[in-house]
Amino acid sequence: MVDEVKLIEIKEDIQADNRLVAENLRQEMSRQKTFLINLMSSPGSGKTSTIISTVEALKGDLSFAVIEADIDSKLDAEKVAARGIKAVQLKTGGFCHLDASMVSKGLQEVDFARFDVVIIENVGNLVCPAEFDTGAIMNAMILSVPEGDDKPLKYPLMFSVCDVLLINKIDYLEFSDFDMLAVKQRVLGLNPRIRIYEISAKTGEGIDVWASWLKQTVDRFVRS
Amino acid sequence: MVDEVKLIEIKEDIQADNRLVAENLRQEMSRQKTFLINLMSSPGSGKTSTIISTVEALKGDLSFAVIEADIDSKLDAEKVAARGIKAVQLKTGGFCHLDASMVSKGLQEVDFARFDVVIIENVGNLVCPAEFDTGAIMNAMILSVPEGDDKPLKYPLMFSVCDVLLINKIDYLEFSDFDMLAVKQRVLGLNPRIRIYEISAKTGEGIDVWASWLKQTVDRFVRS
Repeated sequence: MVDEVKLIEIKEDIQADNRLVAENLRQEMSRQKTFLINLMSSPGSGKTSTIISTVEALKGDLSFAVIEADIDSKLDAEKVAARGIKAVQLKTGGFCHLDASMVSKGLQEVDFARFDVVIIENVGNLVCPAEFDTGAIMNAMILSVPEGDDKPLKYPLMFSVCDVLLINKIDYLEFSDFDMLAVKQRVLGLNPRIRIYEISAKTGEGIDVWASWLKQTVDRFVRS
Repeated sequence: MVDEVKLIEIKEDIQADNRLVAENLRQEMSRQKTFLINLMSSPGSGKTSTIISTVEALKGDLSFAVIEADIDSKLDAEKVAARGIKAVQLKTGGFCHLDASMVSKGLQEVDFARFDVVIIENVGNLVCPAEFDTGAIMNAMILSVPEGDDKPLKYPLMFSVCDVLLINKIDYLEFSDFDMLAVKQRVLGLNPRIRIYEISAKTGEGIDVWASWLKQTVDRFVRS
């Protein structure tokens, strides 16, 4: 007589607990009028330099702090802090994602209510970060041209959970067979409401358009 | 003027929280007189077949339940249940370790107080599981001969946190350059108090000696 084997889905339990923490965090940020952005991408797609360019473009209008996450270094936080931007480094120690309670520790450390916007630079990974609600009001991701135009096919969840896609390193387009139209069609097929901006954090191209939209979005949030 | 960057060690915070949960779990198991064993190893070193051989060897003396953990299948739990052993499957969904609250869910599901011994078959991995206290009273690991005698050098933490090492698949010794003496010296150098048993879950060799020691250990725990 063999018992049926009961299956317990650990990750689903953990994610349900996390969603509650994330929802509370979102309400707290709304009360304090601080706009929280969760920025995700592969390693090396230009998250840190995009953050620096965006903050530079808006520094007369909005105040920013940055929560950097990395498995085992504080290089990115130091790069951001060197530009005079308030930064804290979360060392995840092997975890490939951030959850809402980890983000909450970082927010307390930067004293978030002093800032209009806090940007989370999530762990460089297109899988795990997409599965955990960080408590952010906006999910944004970067896809860089050298990564290739097939990424929406390979990582559909990441493209589905984001409100904004920044296509970075467009200065590489002329040396690449990256099919911009195909990418946009693939992404909009997964997520028809996503906003897509083409940028180069290196040359600055397109940063003004993205930054101007971000400014309007934060203004609407603060007035709401 | 650049602020110093504060570093927050996420994993240390999480592990501190986990140690508390683990300690409470250990006390609860002691009150109920159920002996909890955390069995760890690489994938394919023979955890499931060692569990089955051990339970078979002791079935007249002790009652057993098994908590199986796997990233994405319930094959192992079904293999154990097919032998009439009470089993539950924890599907970790990408997590490479078990922590004490995950184990606690499994223990509730098997109704642990009905059993003398519950064995946790941890996720097949020599890194992450060593870092998380599961609440077990005994940590055991398997190193199988085909994995090679260099493993204590590569994964010292795992060998350091275990109370028992089972060297499995000794039926392969004659076809292998596995240096048993060197392994034992390396392991005892890391962890002088560890017990080492040579077994073959396949042929049954050595299972009686290990099982007999386990029986005495559980008896001492129940009387304490």
